Amino acid sequence: MIVIVKAGHEEIIDEIKNRFDGTNEVFVHHNRVAIQGITEKDLNAEEKNAIDLIIDNVPAAVQGSRLFHPEDTVVTTAHSKIGGDHFTMMAGPCSVESAEHVMKMAKVAKSGGATILRGGAFKPRTSPYSFQGLGEDGLKFLRAAADAYDMDVLTEVMDQDHVDMIAKYTDIFQIGARNMQNFSLLKAVGRTNIPVMLKRGMSATIDDILNAAEYIAAGGNHQIIITERGIRTFDNKYTRNTLDLGAVPVLQKLTHYPVIVDPSHAAGHTEFVTPEALAGVAVGASGLVVEIHDDPAHAFSDGAQALKPNQYREMAAKAFAIRKTLVAPVEEKSEVSL
Amino acid sequence: MIVIVKAGHEEIIDEIKNRFDGTNEVFVHHNRVAIQGITEKDLNAEEKNAIDLIIDNVPAAVQGSRLFHPEDTVVTTAHSKIGGDHFTMMAGPCSVESAEHVMKMAKVAKSGGATILRGGAFKPRTSPYSFQGLGEDGLKFLRAAADAYDMDVLTEVMDQDHVDMIAKYTDIFQIGARNMQNFSLLKAVGRTNIPVMLKRGMSATIDDILNAAEYIAAGGNHQIIITERGIRTFDNKYTRNTLDLGAVPVLQKLTHYPVIVDPSHAAGHTEFVTPEALAGVAVGASGLVVEIHDDPAHAFSDGAQALKPNQYREMAAKAFAIRKTLVAPVEEKSEVSL
Amino acid sequence: MIVIVKAGHEEIIDEIKNRFDGTNEVFVHHNRVAIQGITEKDLNAEEKNAIDLIIDNVPAAVQGSRLFHPEDTVVTTAHSKIGGDHFTMMAGPCSVESAEHVMKMAKVAKSGGATILRGGAFKPRTSPYSFQGLGEDGLKFLRAAADAYDMDVLTEVMDQDHVDMIAKYTDIFQIGARNMQNFSLLKAVGRTNIPVMLKRGMSATIDDILNAAEYIAAGGNHQIIITERGIRTFDNKYTRNTLDLGAVPVLQKLTHYPVIVDPSHAAGHTEFVTPEALAGVAVGASGLVVEIHDDPAHAFSDGAQALKPNQYREMAAKAFAIRKTLVAPVEEKSEVSL
Amino acid sequence: MIVIVKAGHEEIIDEIKNRFDGTNEVFVHHNRVAIQGITEKDLNAEEKNAIDLIIDNVPAAVQGSRLFHPEDTVVTTAHSKIGGDHFTMMAGPCSVESAEHVMKMAKVAKSGGATILRGGAFKPRTSPYSFQGLGEDGLKFLRAAADAYDMDVLTEVMDQDHVDMIAKYTDIFQIGARNMQNFSLLKAVGRTNIPVMLKRGMSATIDDILNAAEYIAAGGNHQIIITERGIRTFDNKYTRNTLDLGAVPVLQKLTHYPVIVDPSHAAGHTEFVTPEALAGVAVGASGLVVEIHDDPAHAFSDGAQALKPNQYREMAAKAFAIRKTLVAPVEEKSEVSL
Repeated sequence: MIVIVKAGHEEIIDEIKNRFDGTNEVFVHHNRVAIQGITEKDLNAEEKNAIDLIIDNVPAAVQGSRLFHPEDTVVTTAHSKIGGDHFTMMAGPCSVESAEHVMKMAKVAKSGGATILRGGAFKPRTSPYSFQGLGEDGLKFLRAAADAYDMDVLTEVMDQDHVDMIAKYTDIFQIGARNMQNFSLLKAVGRTNIPVMLKRGMSATIDDILNAAEYIAAGGNHQIIITERGIRTFDNKYTRNTLDLGAVPVLQKLTHYPVIVDPSHAAGHTEFVTPEALAGVAVGASGLVVEIHDDPAHAFSDGAQALKPNQYREMAAKAFAIRKTLVAPVEEKSEVSL
Repeated sequence: MIVIVKAGHEEIIDEIKNRFDGTNEVFVHHNRVAIQGITEKDLNAEEKNAIDLIIDNVPAAVQGSRLFHPEDTVVTTAHSKIGGDHFTMMAGPCSVESAEHVMKMAKVAKSGGATILRGGAFKPRTSPYSFQGLGEDGLKFLRAAADAYDMDVLTEVMDQDHVDMIAKYTDIFQIGARNMQNFSLLKAVGRTNIPVMLKRGMSATIDDILNAAEYIAAGGNHQIIITERGIRTFDNKYTRNTLDLGAVPVLQKLTHYPVIVDPSHAAGHTEFVTPEALAGVAVGASGLVVEIHDDPAHAFSDGAQALKPNQYREMAAKAFAIRKTLVAPVEEKSEVSL
Repeated sequence: MIVIVKAGHEEIIDEIKNRFDGTNEVFVHHNRVAIQGITEKDLNAEEKNAIDLIIDNVPAAVQGSRLFHPEDTVVTTAHSKIGGDHFTMMAGPCSVESAEHVMKMAKVAKSGGATILRGGAFKPRTSPYSFQGLGEDGLKFLRAAADAYDMDVLTEVMDQDHVDMIAKYTDIFQIGARNMQNFSLLKAVGRTNIPVMLKRGMSATIDDILNAAEYIAAGGNHQIIITERGIRTFDNKYTRNTLDLGAVPVLQKLTHYPVIVDPSHAAGHTEFVTPEALAGVAVGASGLVVEIHDDPAHAFSDGAQALKPNQYREMAAKAFAIRKTLVAPVEEKSEVSL
Repeated sequence: MIVIVKAGHEEIIDEIKNRFDGTNEVFVHHNRVAIQGITEKDLNAEEKNAIDLIIDNVPAAVQGSRLFHPEDTVVTTAHSKIGGDHFTMMAGPCSVESAEHVMKMAKVAKSGGATILRGGAFKPRTSPYSFQGLGEDGLKFLRAAADAYDMDVLTEVMDQDHVDMIAKYTDIFQIGARNMQNFSLLKAVGRTNIPVMLKRGMSATIDDILNAAEYIAAGGNHQIIITERGIRTFDNKYTRNTLDLGAVPVLQKLTHYPVIVDPSHAAGHTEFVTPEALAGVAVGASGLVVEIHDDPAHAFSDGAQALKPNQYREMAAKAFAIRKTLVAPVEEKSEVSL
């Protein structure tokens, strides 16, 4: 149950908090108080008097809900803002391959308008015998490259015991699709104050991802970015996953966290990345995260889906242009015969 | 196998045709000849000499393939062109409800830039006890409304025995998702010379829909439009289907038929129709087909997903603007801080 | 709404029927009356007095529902009973290939305990250029083979215009998965008095198939058999479809029609057909329908999933044995150390 | 590549191992040597001479493959054998609720023939605010209950930092569906010598689960049990997941690890658990793992899918009887008219 307290009665917030905390989960956001496990009849007369509105049927993932927190969350890092009216480009190689290579990729990323440099130093690979990443060395290379171009770092953490170490290098933690319900890992990043980019699991429902985000929020970390990256469906002959762009406006309605799109893992093949990226912009996402590589055929991982520098810059220019068109006031009906 | 005949050797085309037709399927498009069931060793010396290139690994749906027919097909009706560089808006009510109502909806559709009026007179309903459409009366109302606004008619045929009758009223047949593999119906419309808009089945793969289109083409009708309208996946709590926009560039690569997007049946809820429509434009579709209604709460069918007139016009204006941005030459990298 | 009439008040049944029929759908089964579109308040005092129980929240597919028709339907043909306590084996080749071949297959089918001979004369093929069946000749061969071994014929109808012709040869119509929502075809077989075996569509929900069956029942034909044959999911690398055996007890709870299992189309590969068949028996299905062939490598269609005669007989012997174990009274806890 | 060494040439095994180890993954099983990343041309004349057969196209998950390890693995604990010709019952409550309750449930489990007691002390819950388990106390209660009835303990580990602690109490680790690709956790249990029961992820393909098992094997732990527990598909209105029983014979063909079935999480509702369990037996699984509770309405978790004691014992008796029928020699064709 969420109660909205009347203006001038804010003192009741602490009283409610004191009365229920310990036995029930209680969360406060401005004049809204969420109390788990009670109903209107559990309120006393004084409390009822101070309350403007009661909202029932609150989802389990209450802290992430718009019912509790109506305004957009804007995740803020040194060089970027994600969410609200902002549109943010994130780019970089799938894996950090060397100090030189990631530096070169940072330059490319920046040249297309990215403010966040992505790159993996610890890689979740389907097979235990595949390349598993450069580890902490990779993080150092990534940090140096981002710093050289005034960018922020985004990198995956896949092991709860790495959280403190990775925290020394990154501006945003990425939780990968396979770990979306690794609850110990979610709790571990939830105890930090570093933003978390949470990717939707391959078969995660909308409610599943909101509950996964709540595991992070429950630890006190509310700087969360949700990423649609394609789901597993019956047809993966031509694309790696099915990009579920309808999930973007659905999530934006239900949660205040920014929602971005990863077209690279959805498409799985370079030629389909740009159309999926532009569709992600037009559906209203707050940003894109894309994989780039100057020599995809020799990439350490996922080369088949990397955009080459020129492809990336063209995609990015078109993406910014479509974003501009999308948020512009609606003109009189276009009479152009397109 | 497809053979490409050398310039100046076109006389071989008829010879190949005569030699294999009867025992094998043979199709000719300009200087390309597709012969089913043979390999290079079945060609004689004269034929080999006249051939520039042999393409193996040809899909079963050969007539629809870009390998056989590289250029875009542009489907042409009295008031519309679909495919190629064109972008086409199609709109109308789910069901034709009355002469007056469909006339009103035609006016709205036209005001948003649509040149094609959609409306159902025969409705495929999950339950036998639901409203099944006005039948031929509905077709008359629909035709009159389209004519009043210089539009083309698009309406569903769900019964092969109705093909001749519906042909008297429509400019484009619609084959619905549930009938995508109703092969008798596909053959029936394939014997007409009226364009066919074929909707992807809920669990149809890319190859399935191309083979379904081939059933139409096999009858001699090549005026085919393919429609992505959402597939069935594990999550339909918030949207009715999962719009698979990645399928659009995949189909555009594989086939020469125009590919359009139906955001209404995918979204299933008005509030998500516009974002999905705009994403469909940005992914590069050749058009949109959307459901509109002035009083959705009292629509005879599918009211929950209908756009109201103003919502429709705003969506359409934005759609045309995004299309314009999409096809414009790439500008120098935008320095705007969006 | 369904009303259950008190014993001794059966005269009210006709009164209710007369009062609502014409404006509402009304169905009667013994002392149960289903009236679509009304609620308790629409009943008058006399009616209320004669009624023992009112059931609300009735599914759209009311005639197929156990709420309306609690007892099992037993579909009866000359040589077979399907449903209730009966267990029925159906076997035969995918396609009728020749008079001699289907005669041979009938002998095999019979030797394994089948009382129903299946075989396709009109084949729904994904590609228009694949073998489409022998047509009416095939039906004649199939009928002769069944008659020679005192078996019933089961064959697919995929075109509503073939219903009358096929009716001359078959004991049971099969509606294939691709046509499960071909409503014109469902209506056409619903107007006959020949039993119909309806296969679940590849992405049909439980409710979808019950509604499809209702299209048949709405025409007056209640001799319906429902077949689980595998659904389309994300994994089809090793099996053709995912056999959804959980659907069998679910359907048996919801509907009175017999439910059988087709392991051949689910497995798609001979080596997995027998385990899936036996699982179908143990889950409680009323029968199996399997494809057999003496020379699978040269079968006209679907050879990869056909059981050879010996494989079929071993499967069938095991199937009957498991059925016997399944329906036997539970013994004292087995002390065998298995 | 796998090479099979000729009898009498076993000394070459160590030579191959020494030559490639360090640069390539090398695994030895009896007279088979798997070497990752090489082809026949990398072998020298002496090696070629000592080799009977070369197997190419080896899957990445080579240690789990039948190509490398043809014989069944039989996982052995104090009171149970899983795999090979054995059939094993595992039962217990979803959560350990108290010392008394789990003791009572152990008695019930044993009375139905179970030799393994399952129970959760650390629960992976979708929502962070749901009951998360009794922790180490729960493990103590579970151990005591299993010991009292001469049973083995099976319990879930969901956090790599708990591995050593849980190892003190359990005979088999369970890795849950949500953690199937939590690679750090897989590596952690792979470093122990305690058997691991690995549940298939909700959208994991057959290849995915084999690769996940390989992460465990790569650490040196080969005591692995694979569990089919239902996958996520488009229809979950009546069952929680779709039990993919076709996966059982597929897995048995590909891997030597035992494969068992969990009908409880698949069905999600008590009334469908027994049919799915029996189907699991008939499809050939090496065992069942089921949830039981004496008062499901008040279970701490998953009460809706728990079998009551009597239901469990009836199911188990039937399961053992069907297993006996399944593995019995095929009798002459039963003439009973079932």
